[in-house]
Order: sequence, then C-alpha cells, then structure tokens
Amino acid sequence: MIDPSEVLAGDRRALARLLTQVENGTEAAGQALAALFPHTGRARRVGITGPPGSGKSSLVNELAKRLLHGEGTERAPATVAIVAVDPSSPFTGGAILGDRIRMRDLAGDPGIFIRSMASRGTLGGLARTTADVVNVLDAAGYDVILIETVGAGQSEVDIARAAHTTVVVEAPGLGDDVQAIKAGLLEVADILVVNKADQPGAEAARRALQASLDLAHPAARRWANADGAHAGRGHEPVMVEAEAPDEMWIPPIVSTVAVKGEGFEALLEALDRHRTHLETSGELGRRERERLAHELEARLRDYLLADLRDRVGPKALASTLERVAARQQDPGSAARELVSTIYQRSLEP
Amino acid sequence: MIDPSEVLAGDRRALARLLTQVENGTEAAGQALAALFPHTGRARRVGITGPPGSGKSSLVNELAKRLLHGEGTERAPATVAIVAVDPSSPFTGGAILGDRIRMRDLAGDPGIFIRSMASRGTLGGLARTTADVVNVLDAAGYDVILIETVGAGQSEVDIARAAHTTVVVEAPGLGDDVQAIKAGLLEVADILVVNKADQPGAEAARRALQASLDLAHPAARRWANADGAHAGRGHEPVMVEAEAPDEMWIPPIVSTVAVKGEGFEALLEALDRHRTHLETSGELGRRERERLAHELEARLRDYLLADLRDRVGPKALASTLERVAARQQDPGSAARELVSTIYQRSLEP
Repeated sequence: MIDPSEVLAGDRRALARLLTQVENGTEAAGQALAALFPHTGRARRVGITGPPGSGKSSLVNELAKRLLHGEGTERAPATVAIVAVDPSSPFTGGAILGDRIRMRDLAGDPGIFIRSMASRGTLGGLARTTADVVNVLDAAGYDVILIETVGAGQSEVDIARAAHTTVVVEAPGLGDDVQAIKAGLLEVADILVVNKADQPGAEAARRALQASLDLAHPAARRWANADGAHAGRGHEPVMVEAEAPDEMWIPPIVSTVAVKGEGFEALLEALDRHRTHLETSGELGRRERERLAHELEARLRDYLLADLRDRVGPKALASTLERVAARQQDPGSAARELVSTIYQRSLEP
Repeated sequence: MIDPSEVLAGDRRALARLLTQVENGTEAAGQALAALFPHTGRARRVGITGPPGSGKSSLVNELAKRLLHGEGTERAPATVAIVAVDPSSPFTGGAILGDRIRMRDLAGDPGIFIRSMASRGTLGGLARTTADVVNVLDAAGYDVILIETVGAGQSEVDIARAAHTTVVVEAPGLGDDVQAIKAGLLEVADILVVNKADQPGAEAARRALQASLDLAHPAARRWANADGAHAGRGHEPVMVEAEAPDEMWIPPIVSTVAVKGEGFEALLEALDRHRTHLETSGELGRRERERLAHELEARLRDYLLADLRDRVGPKALASTLERVAARQQDPGSAARELVSTIYQRSLEP
C-alpha cells in the first residue's frame, strides 16, 4: 500500500517505495500519481546530458552540493533530487555504479535524494517512467530536480523534454565523432558546458561548440564575438556573457572542472539567468504546456491500446496477427479493421 | 503519384520517390506500403550498430562490396540495400556526410541502393519509419538489407528489432566508458566485431568483450576457451569458432580491419552460420512474428489516437489539456475520460 500523504509529508522510505512501484508500472502507482498530480509544478527541473566520458556525474554531484548549501549568501539553500537515467543499458543496470560513487559523497544528507534508473523494455517506456518519477519528486517537495542522462541519442532528447532547462556537457578528447553527437544535442541545449576544461583540447572543444552554435543561432555570432577575446586565455574557466537582444536566448558556453569544483559560480549564474528568461518570456508556461500535452498523449495511447485489447479479446488479436504473419493482410489495414470492429460492437445491444 | 508496380519492377527513381513519401508519412505512402506488404519477407535483414568511431560505415561499405560481388566461387552475388540511420541527429542531417563518402565508393552500381535517414520528430518515429523503409526495400527485391545505426542507446536497440541478425561493432581506443555502452548492446548482438583490429588495444577490447559475453552467456566460456589460444597472436584477424551445443547461439567475436578489407571472410561466414541457425532452430519465424506483432501494435497505437482525435474533435482535446495544465485533472484520469466519451458518442443516434 502506498499512502501519497506520506510522500507529501517528506517520508523518504515511502517515496522510495512509491518510485519502485512507478518503475514497475503498477496500478497503485497510477493511483498515487493521480493523487500527487495537483501538487506538481513547483520544482525546477534541470536536465543534464552529454556523451559518456564528459564527466556528467561529477558535474551533477558538485552542482547538487552547491545548490544544497547555497552559494555564499546570495542563493538560498535548496533541497535536491537527482534522477540518473541510463538509456544505453536496457538489460543490465548500468546506472548503478555511478550511483554508488555518488552515495559516498552525498548520501545521508536529508536534503538530497538520489534515484538511478536503467532502461527496461520498450522504446518510449523509459522517457515515460522518467517523467512519472520526476513528477513524484516534484510533489514530494524537492526544490531542484536534476535529471542526468548518459549517452546522446534520441532517448536523451526525449528525456530532456521533462526538464525546463537542458544542460549539455562536453569534454575535450572524446574522439573524432564528438562533433556528430553535438550536432544532435545542440538544438535542445539551453546551456553548454565544456567540462574537464583544464585538459588539453578544451579550448578546441569550446571553439568547436561555438562554431556549431554560430550555425544554429546565426545571431549568436555577433554577441559571442564581444566575448571572444576572453576565450583561450589559459585554463581559467570563463563564461560567455553574451547579452542577447530582448527575449532571445542564446545558449552560453560555460567551462568547468567538476572534480576541482571550478566554474560552478558561472554555471549557477547561467542556470539562474535561464530560469529568469523562462519566466519573463513566457517560455516556462509554453514548455510546461508542451510537456503536459506529451504526457496526456502518452496516456491516451496506452489507454486506447489496453482498452482495445479488452474489447476485442486475445483471440481476435491472435487471428489478426496470424493473417499479417501469413502476409494475407498488411499491418495498416489490419489495425483499421480491428478499430472498426470495436465501434460496431459498442453499437450492439 | 506512386505506382507500387514500378518499385516492384526495380525502378530506382520510383523507389527513391516512395522512400521520401514514407519518410514524410504521407497517405500515398501508407497505400503503397499496404500494396507492397505481400511482397516482403524475402530479404536478409542485417542490423549493424556500435558506438561512434568504431568504423561502422567502412565496415558496412566493405561488407556491401563483398556481398555484391560474391566471395570467390562460394557465394552467389547479391543485391544490397544500405539504410544508414542516425538517431543522434534529430534536427540536422548528420547521416549525410557518411553517405557522401560512401557514394564515391559504391554509388553507380545498379546492385547497390543507399538511403540515409536522420531522426525527425518523436521518439519511436524513427524506428517506425526505418521499419517501413526496410519493408519497401525488401519488396523492391534487394537480397540483403544492411541497417546501419550510429550510436548506442535504446533507439538502436529498437531499430535492431527490424533486423534478423544484429552485428555490434566495437573498436579499441574509444575511451573508458565503452564498457558501459557494450553492456547495453551485448544482449541484442548476434555477432560481435572488433574493428580496427590492427590498432593498439584491440586485444584488450576483444578480451573485454569476451569477459562481458561470459557473464551474459555462462556457457560461452567453455566453448570460447578452446579458441582462446588463438586470440592475441599478433594482428591477424581470427574468429572464435566456438561450436555451441545444439541450437544455442553464442555470439562469435570477429576481428576486422575494415579499411584494409581484413577479416571479412570470417564475418561473412559468421553471418551465414547465423542465418542457418535462425532457419534450423525456428528462431527466424519467431523473430519475424515478433517484428510483425510490434508493427501491428505501432499501427494500432497511431490509428487509435488519430481516430480519437477525429471523434472528440479539437475543442474537447484543448479543453482537456486546459484542465490538466491547470492541475485540475491528472493526465491519466483525463485520458480515461476522453476515451469513455467516444464510446458514449458512438451509442448516440
């Protein structure tokens, strides 16, 4: 049994139990999600993604610590939930190791909650479950939810949809094909980070990112040039302070050395600036609406299919599949026929 | 207008036009797919995936050439279609460059057809479109269809479902996190390839793959050991000739140097052996059935949602989304309510 009020009251064990139910897609989880839904919408949702080897986990760790303790006197301390998602591990639990390393550092702090998820089952399933997990953590009252994804494919782009702000992390020396990966993630990035900025090739990585950015946001070139003089002056992390005109957001490039804790003041500033941009431009409302529309559509798809299964029964489904397997009917016509069947039935007495 | 008979007759321009329609999801494409469906089921579908930098494209190129010309006197020449899918590039056309390089080498040969696809739009969309594209190429009469995917995430696993045989390509020197990537792809691999086998670290990569394989298939250890003595003897590509008992398939590890054309006799042999295994064990029928069941389900989901949209109309959908955005109703309950509406309506006169 899950009592949503325990989760709302901040009971960590009840929260962990509910998340397990959510991951297993139980009916109880569905009821709890419905009950918790009115309490969602308050948390800041930040997605952090990038290729393996970019040092995302260290970055997320350090970011969580800074958020938790507040930075100096300027920022209020915040409670933080971390959701670490590994879409590249559909069968084994690849996310576990990162979790263990993190545990040593952050676990035990009552202001931090960590959950690792590995993909199981079908495409789309992980993005859906991640959205549900984030909703539960939102209702549970965490101020900031960091959604960390490993890898750089379509799955990551979809998982990023659960976030208000998406941070894409790169690092020098990840091989020749890094450019290709960047190409896919650049358009979902609100903030770009060059981590391991004290290593050889960091400046080249930064320049490559800037070049890609210039292609994606032609206006960025003009604003970034003002700052261009800073870039390349040794290893000191600097942030492009390009002021974009009006309500246009051009992703800033932030340099960090996560393991040394360098560059995080700039990263936190970029996050705050993006939050302000989201609020003043009306983009936050638009993104929330889009996210909820996606969620509604996903539920509709699942519910419609389950409903059809119940109505036509396993026999009719099996014989349809039989016809398709024998190449007597194509899948499209078979689907249309099945759907028309259920409406005919609902008209029968 | 698309005339499916032109595609069946081997008209390459008609084929290219139809594939564009399929990618754009037009109604004409749906009709053509239905008409072509009875002609599918003959081609050998081989999926080739692995991390960026593993040299997949060179490998696919070389493999296509060998298949096209037949190998010596033993293999009959085969026509080959290549579908290059880049799920990491949802917005820009990342697949294009690889295509151009390939063109120089293979294009102009009437026995080869090449199609590049980049992800556009939603999760699941690319896997669906790839399945349709492969079906068209199957109906068009290509003997072998090579489905190449860049990256190593859930998307690749799903795209692999369109193939009968899945080849996972690794290479030495792709960084520390390669292990994690392997973990996710190992379970879908029918054949493992260590490409760039003449480079430092190839033996270590091979050993790492073998170790992961031992974990996944405990029985593999015994059979691989017989061959273990071969491994590590210089750079000459060798194939583990582990004979598994009865009908059990243990993925062999093949070493190749794609740019030098080394190791391809072993790779072709492994592909043939797997094909024979699929046929004699009944696994081919099982995989085909599973694939078609997935296809039917995907069509049902799309069709049910489109049908619901038509029945309830845009106004009802918008007001439902309004309630969800205002947190007055959770997405799950909203979906159930919408679905119950359509059945009530269908009962009205």
